[in-house]
Amino acid sequence: MSADKEMILQFAPWESFVSPTFWHKLAELKLDHDRLSDSKRSIAGHYTNRNASGCLMEVDYTAYNRTAQPPKFSHSASGTIYNKNTIEEFKALDKLQLLADEGKELLANMSSGEVLRDPSLLTRFFVLSFADLKCHSYYYWFAFPCPLTPTLKLQGAVQRLRDLPYSQNYIEALKLLPAESQNFFILYANEEHKVFEARSLSCLNEKDVEHYYFAFADPSEYDHPAWLMRNYVAFLLQQCPSFVGKSVKFLGLRYNQQMQMDDSRVWQVIQTEACDLSQPGELKFVGWELNKNGKMGPRMVCMRDSMDPAKLAENSVNLNLKLMKWRLVPDLNLEVISQTKCLLFGAGTLGCAVARNLLSWGFKHITLLDNGKVGFSNPVRQNLYTHADAVAGNRMKATTAAQRLREINPSAVTAGHVLEIPMPGHTIGESLLAQTEDHLQVIQQQVQDHDAIFLLTDSRESRWLPTLLGAANQKIVINAALGFDSYLVMRHGSTREEAGDGGQQIDGLKCINGDQLGCYFCNDVTAPGNSLKDRTLDQQCTVTRPGVSNIAASYAVELLVALLQHPRKELAPAYYAQSGRGKSEEAAGKVPEGLLGILPHSIRGMLCNYENIVPATQKFAQCIACSAPVLNAYKKEGNAFLLKTFETAKYLEDLTGISEFKRLNSEIIDFDDDEFDMSEEDED
Amino acid sequence: MSADKEMILQFAPWESFVSPTFWHKLAELKLDHDRLSDSKRSIAGHYTNRNASGCLMEVDYTAYNRTAQPPKFSHSASGTIYNKNTIEEFKALDKLQLLADEGKELLANMSSGEVLRDPSLLTRFFVLSFADLKCHSYYYWFAFPCPLTPTLKLQGAVQRLRDLPYSQNYIEALKLLPAESQNFFILYANEEHKVFEARSLSCLNEKDVEHYYFAFADPSEYDHPAWLMRNYVAFLLQQCPSFVGKSVKFLGLRYNQQMQMDDSRVWQVIQTEACDLSQPGELKFVGWELNKNGKMGPRMVCMRDSMDPAKLAENSVNLNLKLMKWRLVPDLNLEVISQTKCLLFGAGTLGCAVARNLLSWGFKHITLLDNGKVGFSNPVRQNLYTHADAVAGNRMKATTAAQRLREINPSAVTAGHVLEIPMPGHTIGESLLAQTEDHLQVIQQQVQDHDAIFLLTDSRESRWLPTLLGAANQKIVINAALGFDSYLVMRHGSTREEAGDGGQQIDGLKCINGDQLGCYFCNDVTAPGNSLKDRTLDQQCTVTRPGVSNIAASYAVELLVALLQHPRKELAPAYYAQSGRGKSEEAAGKVPEGLLGILPHSIRGMLCNYENIVPATQKFAQCIACSAPVLNAYKKEGNAFLLKTFETAKYLEDLTGISEFKRLNSEIIDFDDDEFDMSEEDED
Repeated sequence: MSADKEMILQFAPWESFVSPTFWHKLAELKLDHDRLSDSKRSIAGHYTNRNASGCLMEVDYTAYNRTAQPPKFSHSASGTIYNKNTIEEFKALDKLQLLADEGKELLANMSSGEVLRDPSLLTRFFVLSFADLKCHSYYYWFAFPCPLTPTLKLQGAVQRLRDLPYSQNYIEALKLLPAESQNFFILYANEEHKVFEARSLSCLNEKDVEHYYFAFADPSEYDHPAWLMRNYVAFLLQQCPSFVGKSVKFLGLRYNQQMQMDDSRVWQVIQTEACDLSQPGELKFVGWELNKNGKMGPRMVCMRDSMDPAKLAENSVNLNLKLMKWRLVPDLNLEVISQTKCLLFGAGTLGCAVARNLLSWGFKHITLLDNGKVGFSNPVRQNLYTHADAVAGNRMKATTAAQRLREINPSAVTAGHVLEIPMPGHTIGESLLAQTEDHLQVIQQQVQDHDAIFLLTDSRESRWLPTLLGAANQKIVINAALGFDSYLVMRHGSTREEAGDGGQQIDGLKCINGDQLGCYFCNDVTAPGNSLKDRTLDQQCTVTRPGVSNIAASYAVELLVALLQHPRKELAPAYYAQSGRGKSEEAAGKVPEGLLGILPHSIRGMLCNYENIVPATQKFAQCIACSAPVLNAYKKEGNAFLLKTFETAKYLEDLTGISEFKRLNSEIIDFDDDEFDMSEEDED
Repeated sequence: MSADKEMILQFAPWESFVSPTFWHKLAELKLDHDRLSDSKRSIAGHYTNRNASGCLMEVDYTAYNRTAQPPKFSHSASGTIYNKNTIEEFKALDKLQLLADEGKELLANMSSGEVLRDPSLLTRFFVLSFADLKCHSYYYWFAFPCPLTPTLKLQGAVQRLRDLPYSQNYIEALKLLPAESQNFFILYANEEHKVFEARSLSCLNEKDVEHYYFAFADPSEYDHPAWLMRNYVAFLLQQCPSFVGKSVKFLGLRYNQQMQMDDSRVWQVIQTEACDLSQPGELKFVGWELNKNGKMGPRMVCMRDSMDPAKLAENSVNLNLKLMKWRLVPDLNLEVISQTKCLLFGAGTLGCAVARNLLSWGFKHITLLDNGKVGFSNPVRQNLYTHADAVAGNRMKATTAAQRLREINPSAVTAGHVLEIPMPGHTIGESLLAQTEDHLQVIQQQVQDHDAIFLLTDSRESRWLPTLLGAANQKIVINAALGFDSYLVMRHGSTREEAGDGGQQIDGLKCINGDQLGCYFCNDVTAPGNSLKDRTLDQQCTVTRPGVSNIAASYAVELLVALLQHPRKELAPAYYAQSGRGKSEEAAGKVPEGLLGILPHSIRGMLCNYENIVPATQKFAQCIACSAPVLNAYKKEGNAFLLKTFETAKYLEDLTGISEFKRLNSEIIDFDDDEFDMSEEDED
């Protein structure tokens, strides 16, 4: 370097130092708050002058909280983030203009006196960014704007604080200044340098300039000061025009690990040329950070590799869901979905498909109950299992499914219980009594511990106990059953007692409140018997078109999600156009919709003509699963009652008076559809 | 043993020896032929008297073919299998009665002279079985019926053939008898035992009894003869009543490994008590085999562990499909399904779900094309991937999906190709030209090599090339596209030229023949441009309710399956009720159904009201993807034409005259529905 060049004071440029948490928080804000808005946002950075190794401007997740205190031994910097919606916008933006705009703001802060109240405005910075949230990549470019002028000349050698006379006096004076004011301040020295006083910037008095050390927290590790001194100088020039031509002293405060400030530097400098900062429109600004190649250009960080994969997955999954909120359903309550605990009776074709749909929707708590092993015919239809599970020969469906769900989304909380569901009319031998009671205990506990129960088993009678327990524990119950090319998806009537308005009456529509809707057994006057015995092969297996189970499982989950979005949840009324065909079409158009559409009692569909109907039916006072006599008997007698029904299903018929009812052979049940012949056996 | 006891000739009982192939074949016959019938079926067993180690009655897959020859050195046995439909029927069947019935048949064969023509009837056996095809377990019980009487007394010691005088003469005589007659025959000896003659049973002459050796192939390895001699004796008693009280000789022929018969046994025996076999109703029969515990009872074999797992899986998967045929759709053509090769453009949410549905239906050939990597948001919706795939960071969707499909069904033939689908208006830079041409080459080859093409990508323009190639190669094309809570599934109009009747005209229904149906672009007057550029986040991702993709994927596969079952396949006409609502309902009931229901042109559905409509629309003569000008330009210019359209989509508009058409701004397109606003972006 030439001697002349040496005379010009150089500044150590800022280096941005971005914590991954800064990007996590940005992603969160983008998804939950900003959405499609790309308005700029205030942020705070911080830097330290203790044991500094480079002029690092750090930002982390606290950056977005303007009231957050900087870390100990650090000072705040005032920033702005411009987060663009697309990489094209990020690229297209006029960088010089943005820098100039920011620079003008900086000068405005100086001239308005705001810097006097908040000197951290002098360490102004901003970030231009694009968050590619799908790929977890963040494109960003930091800038630390300052006017190209002024230019200080160094007078004499750079001194260290420890080499100055009376250095201990300086140090003592500093101790009286609050830490939070030690970013920019003034050290007043009397003539003999024996008395020192630390004052805040607001005490600046132009006539005392020669008695001042213009002090600042200096993150530089070199002989020359950090970049932030440029703005300090500009500010002082603006505040004290007489500054030009005067020899002034700057003190760059630097602490070592032990908080000794002996290495602080003192520069005696002079601004020789006039420098008019009052016309910022004509000033040039500098400050874009170089990228890692030392070139003018943005940086990119891929958080994919540095993030906890489980967290990454969770964020990614949430992204898809939040996008629905952004663009289409701003009132969508994703919280209630992630908190609703789902219990699945059956981990077969329907169970697997329902569980996967639940994960897609962001449900986190899924428990499966099943007594089966994974067999060779299962994997092609039961979409949580593989051929290897069948080869292993001992993989239980419930536990395997639970594990697979975690392999899909590690943040899912899943469990599987291998157990038999006791069934009416399936007598329990003495030898199995203890095991049955154990299983009953688990089933009852699980029902209590969950919010929504799915009935996805392969026989009518295995649905009885879960139906009863769902009703007894006031749970949401969703039922899915399959025929060869037809399906039934329904919500059971609620037993939850909660005051609320009845559904709105609409011409041509039947309206049944959620607590008056029937269950799977309400349309059915026979107690379930042992239908599993003596079934030929075709009755033991699922004989369904494969599409049927996927469609039914999807509707089952969509129905639950739609219910959860309704203010009254499962108490939401169901509407059904009951009269003639032409009229019913017209009436159907009037069905009130929830956030995600209508909330039918049941969906019955057929693959052969791609038609669905959505009938609603009333609770049946003599239902063998959900009626008062049954619920009361269960509440009163508990397991003793259950064991009696397992012994003989006739017990249920007598209890509800159905035996008599059957004798009368009357027709008082409100059968709404005669078009569907739903098979009882629906799944293997 | 007492001396008295020693005098009674004992017989070595049969042991059943069942080859796994016997059960495989039974399963096949049950599934493909017998189905729910449990009629008895004739089978053949075989046994050997060469180097025999036990009286093994072997059955294998040839058992069901009565014209099959027994293996070398083996003899046929005549059998019957009673295969029951349920384990309960298997258990409940009256075993004594069945044995008696079989025994009577045996005696009837003897008295009718059938045994003379076919001595293998003397080695009669039968199997009572139940094939649990779901668990690959076979319950079975063999019986070798014979009347409890007669009871032979042994006279003198058992002799070996080699110990007899003139034993070489016996052996020479035997050599003249055809091997197939050597199960039961007569060896005539003159008085000096010097001359021997082997004769078939039909030459039996009662007066020569004392000159006979009643010879038989004897699988016994002990001093006493095999069980089959009991029936031989019974037969002889029936044929020669004078046999009683006479001393007769039996020769049990036994070969060693070198086909020497020196170890053959000769028993001199006498039936002392009269034995009336003419009243079989009063006879007792014996012959049920003991099980492995030495008890009277059936055996069970679990083929699961001994079968090739891949084969097991294949059988199991086919079982589910064949069950549909049995009970519900006897004409279902499963062959065409397993032979149809499917090509999937896109291995995202739709691609994965479609591939899984294809496997469920028994499709074997599935190829996927995709250019993407598995990302963290994918596994919860794209049901062939796991979190670990995303963590790995370099798993390509196409190849990963192909591998996963084989992990579900090892007999699936799958492939994945990682490539970009070139798109109209997506200019290809010089540097990518060679790669694009490579990809084009692969895409074209794949389309040619497959029968059905699925369009499951995430943008409108990426569907253009596959639409064109599907049409140019006369393939079946199925298209699925998603909106937030709506879906479109359609079959493209066929370009296959095949004579055939037009669809039946039905009042109130529009009928469009398969070759006149439109494609995805036929309703669309703009050439696809670069819609991927500058999309904000919500446009880049799938913003759909999760159920939508599963439902659409299921319909897409069910539509293909239904088409394949139609005699004219994709040329099948589509019907659509076009007029007012009330009327359309009525007309809809008249839509002709194929084997699996109606064959619509398209299915458009919404989750918000669970409704589907099935509109049909005509081909558009100026379609930018499937019209004659486009197909001709492609046929004539090939890749040169494609590259021009990639350069600018306007080229397509000019080619088809759409530019002009747009200027005229007329409304001549047959839009059938104004109810659905299908989003173009449908999948991530």
